[in-house]
Amino acid sequence: MRKNITFRVVFIFILFVMLSCKNESTTSSEKISETKTEGTQQHPKLILTAQGVKDIRAQLGTIPIFDKSLEAVKKEVDAEIEAGIDVPIPKDYSGGYTHVVHKKNWFILQKAGLLYQILDDEKYAKYVKDMLMEYEALYKTLPLHPKTRSYARGKLFWQCLNDSNWLVYVSQAYDCIYNYLTEEERNKLETNLFRPFADHISVDSPQFYQRVHNHSTWGNSAVGMIGLVMDDEELINRALYGIKDLKLAANKKDDDGGFLNKDGKAGFLANIEEPFSPDGYYNEGPYYQRYAMYPFLVFAEALHNVKPELKIFEYKEGVLLKSINALLNLSDADGDFFPLNDGQKGMSYYTNALVTAVDVSYHFGEQDPGLLSIAKEQDKVLLDDSGLAVALGIKNGKEKPFAKKSINLSDGPEGKQGGVGILRNENLELVFKYAAQGSSHGHYDKLSYSLYENGEEVIQDYGLSRFVNIEQKGGGNYLKENKTWAKQTIAHNTVTQNETSHFTGKYDIGSLHHSDLNYFSSDNEMVQVVSAIEKNAYPGTIMLRTMAIIKDEDFEKPYMLDIMKVTSATANQYDFPFYYFGQVLQTNFEYNSPKTLKPLGSKNGYQHLYVEGSGKASKDNTKFSWFNNNKFYSLTTETTSKDEIVLARIGANDPEFNLRRDPALILRTKNSKKRTFVSVIESHGSYSPVSESAINSNSSIKSIKTILDTEDYTAIEITNVNGSAKLFITSNRNALKQKKHNITINGKNYEWSGSYYFN
Amino acid sequence: MRKNITFRVVFIFILFVMLSCKNESTTSSEKISETKTEGTQQHPKLILTAQGVKDIRAQLGTIPIFDKSLEAVKKEVDAEIEAGIDVPIPKDYSGGYTHVVHKKNWFILQKAGLLYQILDDEKYAKYVKDMLMEYEALYKTLPLHPKTRSYARGKLFWQCLNDSNWLVYVSQAYDCIYNYLTEEERNKLETNLFRPFADHISVDSPQFYQRVHNHSTWGNSAVGMIGLVMDDEELINRALYGIKDLKLAANKKDDDGGFLNKDGKAGFLANIEEPFSPDGYYNEGPYYQRYAMYPFLVFAEALHNVKPELKIFEYKEGVLLKSINALLNLSDADGDFFPLNDGQKGMSYYTNALVTAVDVSYHFGEQDPGLLSIAKEQDKVLLDDSGLAVALGIKNGKEKPFAKKSINLSDGPEGKQGGVGILRNENLELVFKYAAQGSSHGHYDKLSYSLYENGEEVIQDYGLSRFVNIEQKGGGNYLKENKTWAKQTIAHNTVTQNETSHFTGKYDIGSLHHSDLNYFSSDNEMVQVVSAIEKNAYPGTIMLRTMAIIKDEDFEKPYMLDIMKVTSATANQYDFPFYYFGQVLQTNFEYNSPKTLKPLGSKNGYQHLYVEGSGKASKDNTKFSWFNNNKFYSLTTETTSKDEIVLARIGANDPEFNLRRDPALILRTKNSKKRTFVSVIESHGSYSPVSESAINSNSSIKSIKTILDTEDYTAIEITNVNGSAKLFITSNRNALKQKKHNITINGKNYEWSGSYYFN
Repeated sequence: MRKNITFRVVFIFILFVMLSCKNESTTSSEKISETKTEGTQQHPKLILTAQGVKDIRAQLGTIPIFDKSLEAVKKEVDAEIEAGIDVPIPKDYSGGYTHVVHKKNWFILQKAGLLYQILDDEKYAKYVKDMLMEYEALYKTLPLHPKTRSYARGKLFWQCLNDSNWLVYVSQAYDCIYNYLTEEERNKLETNLFRPFADHISVDSPQFYQRVHNHSTWGNSAVGMIGLVMDDEELINRALYGIKDLKLAANKKDDDGGFLNKDGKAGFLANIEEPFSPDGYYNEGPYYQRYAMYPFLVFAEALHNVKPELKIFEYKEGVLLKSINALLNLSDADGDFFPLNDGQKGMSYYTNALVTAVDVSYHFGEQDPGLLSIAKEQDKVLLDDSGLAVALGIKNGKEKPFAKKSINLSDGPEGKQGGVGILRNENLELVFKYAAQGSSHGHYDKLSYSLYENGEEVIQDYGLSRFVNIEQKGGGNYLKENKTWAKQTIAHNTVTQNETSHFTGKYDIGSLHHSDLNYFSSDNEMVQVVSAIEKNAYPGTIMLRTMAIIKDEDFEKPYMLDIMKVTSATANQYDFPFYYFGQVLQTNFEYNSPKTLKPLGSKNGYQHLYVEGSGKASKDNTKFSWFNNNKFYSLTTETTSKDEIVLARIGANDPEFNLRRDPALILRTKNSKKRTFVSVIESHGSYSPVSESAINSNSSIKSIKTILDTEDYTAIEITNVNGSAKLFITSNRNALKQKKHNITINGKNYEWSGSYYFN
Repeated sequence: MRKNITFRVVFIFILFVMLSCKNESTTSSEKISETKTEGTQQHPKLILTAQGVKDIRAQLGTIPIFDKSLEAVKKEVDAEIEAGIDVPIPKDYSGGYTHVVHKKNWFILQKAGLLYQILDDEKYAKYVKDMLMEYEALYKTLPLHPKTRSYARGKLFWQCLNDSNWLVYVSQAYDCIYNYLTEEERNKLETNLFRPFADHISVDSPQFYQRVHNHSTWGNSAVGMIGLVMDDEELINRALYGIKDLKLAANKKDDDGGFLNKDGKAGFLANIEEPFSPDGYYNEGPYYQRYAMYPFLVFAEALHNVKPELKIFEYKEGVLLKSINALLNLSDADGDFFPLNDGQKGMSYYTNALVTAVDVSYHFGEQDPGLLSIAKEQDKVLLDDSGLAVALGIKNGKEKPFAKKSINLSDGPEGKQGGVGILRNENLELVFKYAAQGSSHGHYDKLSYSLYENGEEVIQDYGLSRFVNIEQKGGGNYLKENKTWAKQTIAHNTVTQNETSHFTGKYDIGSLHHSDLNYFSSDNEMVQVVSAIEKNAYPGTIMLRTMAIIKDEDFEKPYMLDIMKVTSATANQYDFPFYYFGQVLQTNFEYNSPKTLKPLGSKNGYQHLYVEGSGKASKDNTKFSWFNNNKFYSLTTETTSKDEIVLARIGANDPEFNLRRDPALILRTKNSKKRTFVSVIESHGSYSPVSESAINSNSSIKSIKTILDTEDYTAIEITNVNGSAKLFITSNRNALKQKKHNITINGKNYEWSGSYYFN
């Protein structure tokens, strides 16, 4: 520790000395710079600006988080310079050697460019130049990448997507050393490397480029960024509006089953217009928003700097900056993003793309002091104008905690395609998905939820089935179980009818529909509610789900109340799972344990579930408690003795062990037209393996009972073990905030205004 | 945070003021005390001494960790005084209401006694007196506890063990307020409560008391502690030497299948003599040593203070203090005890019994500054003489890190019944068990191991099957799966022959035998080795296992080398499991995945394993890699194509879900007389879900090959992927350190001194 501090002090001192020297020679150096830039636009201009460079140099050594970030980048780049340049002939998939090296190169090039500007040390410019020249020599010889799995093969990488990643970063490096290069050198690079590179990922790969999709956003930004550096209006327009006069067949699909381009929209602006709702929710979900965020923001930053007349940060009422706030809110207490749709667990706002997002949001937005606390946790900033702004904000003590509250985020370009509601109280977080399909990365589940406590999953969403960049598992790409399991409805905490996924698991159908909000209410701190309806997942069946997080003085912690009202024209089987974690503690129902484990079904995800136990539900209330990470949990769910319970575990028909062997309890009702599933989940108490004491290990619920269930209202009575009863009435329609209600249940009158009643 | 500090400052200030006032009135107060104690011995004298009280009072407010501990205890006791006294009629098992209350009472009584002495505030003495009087009133009415499950029922609790716990603590409380009470009050308590209490757990419950067992240690200490306070020589002698003239039938057993008293030994001294080896290893293992530690140490402390002529801390060459060092070394990097035999995972040296152990060891031992660093992590000290010593040590900056190194701990009263070897290098820890049966809490596995990396289990020992004090799971007691699974040999990482546990899982047989050390070598920091032989687990079969942790410059981290040499007179099936954690990444062998999961066998633990895959091992080397907690692991094991591989999972025939669904790979050889299992396990690389980059995700082992395997030597060639080969030769006999060896393998000569060769 002490060693580090010493090192840092020495480093900062050296910086000072270097910069003092530089400052003394500023005049001559500026003259050289002026001479060089004659006839060209000023560089750098994309992300780091000439003014930004001046400001940074002036503050250097006095802005701790910036100095630290700079020190880390310098150390990393210096080590790479020491190790020498490696530009291998492309050969591998993700995770393989050539993939990893080219990926590393793009980062190092961008960082070396920044160092050249900030430290004004030619060794970095030379390094960038030398490596770019090696790329120039290589690129002009390259055929398509030898690996054939992608729908759009790149040249450096197996897919155009990664080629685009490369160009987004390398454009910045080129911008930083632009004035260091001779015109001849620039011509060589632009003619043999950048221009053909931009063409390959766009006009030569329209199935990749000409879409509304996170891949295309990378493509558009790549073309646009290099276009801005090269001052090439054609490329800039191609980036903003797509390939001119090109229309793809509307019914074509990509590898993931997503439409390539159904409505002809393309280009960066369309990619802002379409996937973002006015609230800033990105239709594919937070995991892919995180991935798309970087090209969105750096290209937007570049446009803001070079083409301020576009007012890109005001585009669609400022949705880019709003989307950052939405994304930060789509994370749990640890900053991990909720794995809605395809999402790898563990991805969090500590990822580099979110450093960009937070810094850009702070700098170009309204200097929200809450963002500074996240930046401080990230413990680094961008080495550019926005990073400087954040570093100064932290230095000046402006930071405040970033408070995540309950929030409702609409989905759809106009915010009219359902959404995602997040309810929060104390340490409990409920994520409720009633959104649209979510493009090719969407999962077929409507009105599903997951529940978190203090960053731990209580009721999980499975996420994707993929080990991103772990070569041993399918080359690090999507595994087939992503389609056969993770996307299926039974893999989610919602109703599956007749063992078939929502929209029969068909992307074409799912893409036509979305759920609709009934109401969202977070005014009352004690009772947070979200309610939504789904009419299309199963034609003829309507599902209305109302979920609440309720803080009641009779309970240790807030609890979750869940009312899923299913109404169908026909009699069906409904499966209603709870994907809990940990060990079974206690049940109040009898069940059989099979001698051998068999799958629950043969398709639609059921083939991946083993039956570990099956039995009849209890009369009135079925209770199930479990134990995980030294905490106790209890489910109380209203049942009849006709209901069945299945204790299941993921992992059947999974010969490669691609799936996690996680458990579930499934409540099953057969031959039902109407069924309202009413459940409470409590987290309670704790256990210490050190003191071996169990505190509050039992449920506090004596009973839950539906005392009214009509088209208009559902009323649930919740009775605590101490005998005190509370009533929750939800308005199944006419749930407007100002609406007055007056009903009589069991001879007692209830009158209230608004969406629900609780007392 | 600030609030806490303020509170602490105010609290310490109040303490100062209180003590200043007290000091002024010392003379009169001492006079009263002298009057009271006329004719009696000085009190307190057990743990806290009269001199200790003086010293503590003099230092109070200036010894941060002591002050903080005092503050916490005061807060806790004050809240209890506020809540009022509750002495319910006994009714429940562990975890139930009356159990929990009486358990809480014993702690609070002991703490209130300390507070009375340290703070000299009568309210604490009165509280202790009032509660003791309630116990006196209750106890004399009590029949046996109504719950019948124990082999030795208590009166306050369902088992004498817990009654003894109570008395060990409450004796201390009584000692602290002895002089506060009138003689009449003392007579009442002693006649109606303490004496009959001591008799019930001893002369009335000889099957509990008259043994060498951790239960009896509690009983002995309880009787001895109260005997010391009451100055009752009969009780003291009964504590030290057992019930006079009582001999139990040698073949009687307790609930756990352990012999009650095979050789007639009993009493506290016998309980030190028998279970502790000269190195301080406790035969039942660290989990029960932790539990037994408290009565061992507090009674020893009390004997030291009241009967210094016994020289209890020098007894058996100071084994009590040695045992603390052994116990601290039997923990992983996080301080969690290795779950050898019956042991609940998560129990660690942060438990209160270890606060006692660390403080006592420091105070009565050699003031090892390493202990201070553990005390600091524990963040509390005892409120007595030893706690004061530790607090002063920390205050005076004497602490040093407690360095855990490789260590060999002999088992058996004379250190001649095998032992436990722990190999450590960098973050890797290997725990190798070649001990004796370990009394009734022993498991039937010889030459088994578990492997840890930085406190995480890489290859696990299952531990016990019990949820201690969680009432919902079998009343918090041992579950039947402890016998059917956890104690069986197949549940451990060693050889199971013909699907039968070692010693056919019979306690009577297991108790007769132990493994023997071949050699232990930790002189070379790069190569740590332990080797032991087992001749009795399967009559006619000899198992010699040599395990090493090797640090080699060609590898990122140290790796584990395992040579298990099995030699039998008959042809057998050998099963050799690896209980890994996490997801399968890659295999180099073909296997079938069954459509339905069936148990691997029908008894001896096999009935609890599902077969998730089975196949033929690879020729030469079978490789298996997995992924857990963002780290990569690889097993390379020498096989022939006749060997079979079973991919298994725990959980079959477990209707109550008492077992964890953890995975295993089992290497199976059929029809073999001789078989040497040679394996390497590497931990390598890492994965970040935030950057999504996988580093060093592949094994560095190209091959392992046995190039010599005789009665005298086994030689293994380990070849790295970069082609460099190393040779490890182990001496299967004549392994003395000074022994010279000279052998020729494949025409090449090897000459060395000592137990093994590595180069």
